[in-house]
Amino acid sequence: MNQHVPFQSFDEVSDKAQCAPRLAALRAELKRRGLDGFVVPHSDAQQDEYLAPRDERLAWLTAFTGSAGAAVVLADKAAVFVDGRYTLQVRNQTDLSLFEPRDLVAEGPQGWLPHHLPRGAKLGFDPWLHTANGMAHLKAACDKAGATLVAVTGNPVDAVWQDQPPPPLKPAVPHALELAGEEAGAKRARLAASLKQQGAQAAVLTMADSVCWLHNMRGGDLPHTPFALGFAILYDDASSDLFLADAKRSPELAAHLGNAVRLRDPDAFEAALDALTAKTVLADPATAAAAVFDRLARGGAKILRGPDPCQLPKACKNPREVEGMRKAHIRDGAALSNFLAWFAGAAPGGSLTEIEAAEKLEGFRAATGCLKDLSFDSITGAGGNGAIVHYRVTRSTNRMIGRNEMFLLDSGAQYPDGTTDVTRTIMVGEATAEMKDRFTRVLKGHIALATARFPEGTIGMQLDSFARRPLWEAGLDYDHGTGHGVGSYLSVHEGPQNISKRPVMQPLLPGMICSNEPGFYKTGEYGIRIENLVVVTEPKDMGGERGMMGFETLTLAPIDRNLVDPDLLTPEEREWLNLYHARVRDSLSHLVDEETRAWLERATAAI
Amino acid sequence: MNQHVPFQSFDEVSDKAQCAPRLAALRAELKRRGLDGFVVPHSDAQQDEYLAPRDERLAWLTAFTGSAGAAVVLADKAAVFVDGRYTLQVRNQTDLSLFEPRDLVAEGPQGWLPHHLPRGAKLGFDPWLHTANGMAHLKAACDKAGATLVAVTGNPVDAVWQDQPPPPLKPAVPHALELAGEEAGAKRARLAASLKQQGAQAAVLTMADSVCWLHNMRGGDLPHTPFALGFAILYDDASSDLFLADAKRSPELAAHLGNAVRLRDPDAFEAALDALTAKTVLADPATAAAAVFDRLARGGAKILRGPDPCQLPKACKNPREVEGMRKAHIRDGAALSNFLAWFAGAAPGGSLTEIEAAEKLEGFRAATGCLKDLSFDSITGAGGNGAIVHYRVTRSTNRMIGRNEMFLLDSGAQYPDGTTDVTRTIMVGEATAEMKDRFTRVLKGHIALATARFPEGTIGMQLDSFARRPLWEAGLDYDHGTGHGVGSYLSVHEGPQNISKRPVMQPLLPGMICSNEPGFYKTGEYGIRIENLVVVTEPKDMGGERGMMGFETLTLAPIDRNLVDPDLLTPEEREWLNLYHARVRDSLSHLVDEETRAWLERATAAI
Repeated sequence: MNQHVPFQSFDEVSDKAQCAPRLAALRAELKRRGLDGFVVPHSDAQQDEYLAPRDERLAWLTAFTGSAGAAVVLADKAAVFVDGRYTLQVRNQTDLSLFEPRDLVAEGPQGWLPHHLPRGAKLGFDPWLHTANGMAHLKAACDKAGATLVAVTGNPVDAVWQDQPPPPLKPAVPHALELAGEEAGAKRARLAASLKQQGAQAAVLTMADSVCWLHNMRGGDLPHTPFALGFAILYDDASSDLFLADAKRSPELAAHLGNAVRLRDPDAFEAALDALTAKTVLADPATAAAAVFDRLARGGAKILRGPDPCQLPKACKNPREVEGMRKAHIRDGAALSNFLAWFAGAAPGGSLTEIEAAEKLEGFRAATGCLKDLSFDSITGAGGNGAIVHYRVTRSTNRMIGRNEMFLLDSGAQYPDGTTDVTRTIMVGEATAEMKDRFTRVLKGHIALATARFPEGTIGMQLDSFARRPLWEAGLDYDHGTGHGVGSYLSVHEGPQNISKRPVMQPLLPGMICSNEPGFYKTGEYGIRIENLVVVTEPKDMGGERGMMGFETLTLAPIDRNLVDPDLLTPEEREWLNLYHARVRDSLSHLVDEETRAWLERATAAI
Repeated sequence: MNQHVPFQSFDEVSDKAQCAPRLAALRAELKRRGLDGFVVPHSDAQQDEYLAPRDERLAWLTAFTGSAGAAVVLADKAAVFVDGRYTLQVRNQTDLSLFEPRDLVAEGPQGWLPHHLPRGAKLGFDPWLHTANGMAHLKAACDKAGATLVAVTGNPVDAVWQDQPPPPLKPAVPHALELAGEEAGAKRARLAASLKQQGAQAAVLTMADSVCWLHNMRGGDLPHTPFALGFAILYDDASSDLFLADAKRSPELAAHLGNAVRLRDPDAFEAALDALTAKTVLADPATAAAAVFDRLARGGAKILRGPDPCQLPKACKNPREVEGMRKAHIRDGAALSNFLAWFAGAAPGGSLTEIEAAEKLEGFRAATGCLKDLSFDSITGAGGNGAIVHYRVTRSTNRMIGRNEMFLLDSGAQYPDGTTDVTRTIMVGEATAEMKDRFTRVLKGHIALATARFPEGTIGMQLDSFARRPLWEAGLDYDHGTGHGVGSYLSVHEGPQNISKRPVMQPLLPGMICSNEPGFYKTGEYGIRIENLVVVTEPKDMGGERGMMGFETLTLAPIDRNLVDPDLLTPEEREWLNLYHARVRDSLSHLVDEETRAWLERATAAI
């Protein structure tokens, strides 16, 4: 069943020997342009999380392949900025004689530049790769240094990157109404009404998921994310300009989009911004490129700064989208259960590797016949590798999954009806009392969040502590958020809601999908995470005086009973686990093979 | 034992018949000054919560006596702004033909003015009664209206308020080192070091509790709050100018303050601000009067805007202050228990009134011999009055505490070693199943917060939901915060920490004192609140990997067992209640009379 071309690769992509010639070439190019420095962020013109190969400029230059970061190149020094997850990785990957690793969060380019940029220097930046807010930070840093920030025309990295891949040109395809749940025209109409209310005549949309959601369109331009890359301008008459490369279009797509969507060449986007003269135009300084604001200003538009108008309606899934997510999770739960049953037989031998596990799981998902992509590279962490929160196995880190080790498996799939993201932690052999204690605390936190009821206006930060309390009570915690938003056959990470210690002020609203993923990590020994996706609902049967919201758990897969200490559970928590497992069994049994069905019986038995 | 002059009065202080002549006099004065309007906030020059009689300008003008609000007087209309607590009260108190009641929070003067202020109008405001931030809001509103905001010299209300009381001149007294726990000189030295670090040469201190805390000084200028009103300027050499009326000073005070504190006349304050030319001066735009910023700017100081530097160190009580709070709470718990035992005998007769209860409780507190004041007017709410969160009994609202009613009692005392604030809800007669359910849910929330453990960096908003969850689960909630900061023989409400749904970003720190007061209110029927004060501690015996913080409960008084449904409690919650009651009994039994001791035995028996 492994006949598809795999979506996950385990090859090394980093070669530090290339750093010296590439850095030299970039410096020569900067000199030629009269620049004293240049900023290379990990981003593209849509501020995507996963980048097309041609946009991997940071990795090309520094050999650092993490999912976030930036480099600053000056004439005589260069620094690469990474967050706490990547402190070790960057030291392994980059050439430390050329790039000094620095802290992305505590310092960042904006903290570093004032101390290193010479007075009077000209610092270049590509205004398509920085948001307006990001540019403002760079500008402030340059002001402090007495230097000038200069927007480049044409990225200097591209100028010296000889074999830079071309832009992706995968076909853009309609996202059917039966999946989207709302006609694109209806979406444009309600957003147009909201624009009018704000006194705006147009909105510039630069985020790929906004553009795809608004036009009920998907594509394949990026790894793990079914985006068709393009920009759009929405007008208050509910029409839009969609800037999409000709090669991505099909007659079917044009028919699907209809007459109110004017398909235009991406090269025409800048001129279209210029042409919004005297109009009030909504643009989001937190997500839209600085170049957009520059063009709008130059063209004489009146800029209304505000959040991307698609973000909130996109986050609140309609009933059809929620139904699609439910179906996707049943399918995915069956595939994952097939894997887990196979794993239960194969792992105790002690010769299975992390890569084999990832490949096998992808195979089970592909066998559903609906797999469009993984929603991210599977995290398959055995023993101490499980304690590395951002771990991705490569051929060089690959190891056996040993006996009496925990195995952390965080994975997800892109299906046309929904996006999944699920983490299970599985014991191979015998768990220690400490492992059971930690796992059960994580489970108690997971249940506390899954069963939370909360009133209108509640933000994720107010619920995050429910998931942490059982760990806090034992002097433990985890250093990541508890829940991120998830798209509907879009990005596996989306805003604006968030469940974490950060004060993200967006209240949770019905239809929002979030992950519920508390964890615990013991460095060098094991990692625990239990992750289900949940959708915000409005339970009707509560009684009381005020409507409350709650969560419906979407993810369906057994939670390893071998790691649960039943004595640590309250009767209510035990009931939750048993009811959840009964639901898993009832939902999946008819979809799995005989052997898995038998395993599922055991794995979901009441405790 | 009721020989002291009572601190709480129950007389009506509001007379709406005065509104017309007073408003007319103010309008004439405004006209004389060439002003088209004037803003009358509920505040004084220190932004105090309780005001001296001379600062009750809002009540004088509008007859509205609530603790928060504002009025705007224009030539042909006037509005009074109150929050949700006071919607009914303002309609009873003010002359509705003169003042239109408006929403203080949703609209406020800044929302109302743009629609009512004529273009070109001059709106007056007293720059000593508005913070810099508050003034900025008024300024923005005037800009929208095309009007001008004009700072007045001399408040026009004062000009027409014929029998306005004089400023309070109660003696300022030393706050002994054995109570304060840190020499005033040491406080000034550590704040001076922090000023230097920020590059500031001076800080302007306008909040009364900051000035009193920094100088280890107390006074009696305001009701319920042992403040000596005055301003101060702290310098980076650890000296200060203390602007304090001559009549408040004593030789003892001067000796206590020492040579590094220069006692100066309040009239010299403005000139002293002018004289900070070319110095970098820290001032807090959220708490300091707009006038302060105006004088600093005019004098040529470089203003550094930042939080009042006393707020955070003052909030983190030192061991001596915590010890004082513990003692004060034992003393207060004994007085409250004497009252509760008396009440248990007297209330079932059905003829006790709310005022009698308040007077009796004050008597028991006075009998300790240490009572300096109540920390606020006692809230004695029988039946439906208990559901009015801000209820204060007056001779006209006073009612019998009936049989089979709940009685909500929120009260506190100012003792030299500490400030108390405690709420108990007592059942007179038989509780219904609903009452017990609601009370037990409030208790569960109270226990959940009292027993919380949390890591460094946690803010109150992250813990607030613990207190609400048992109510949320039943579709219920309460519309006030769960915890406010409490001063050490200072204000019963202080910042910067806060436990509520609001994102107040100050992390909780060891030594901070907060209330823990979840509640539930059924309009017209009953109110429930269970309030203890807690202090943030660092428990050492937790194990685990990370230091956690927690709370120690300070308040000692029985929680009414007649309202508890034991079946709704978990074993851990039941244990908490029983241990708490055992501690109450052990701490108080030797301090109360025979009859109370017997009652205490019963009231604290294990359930």
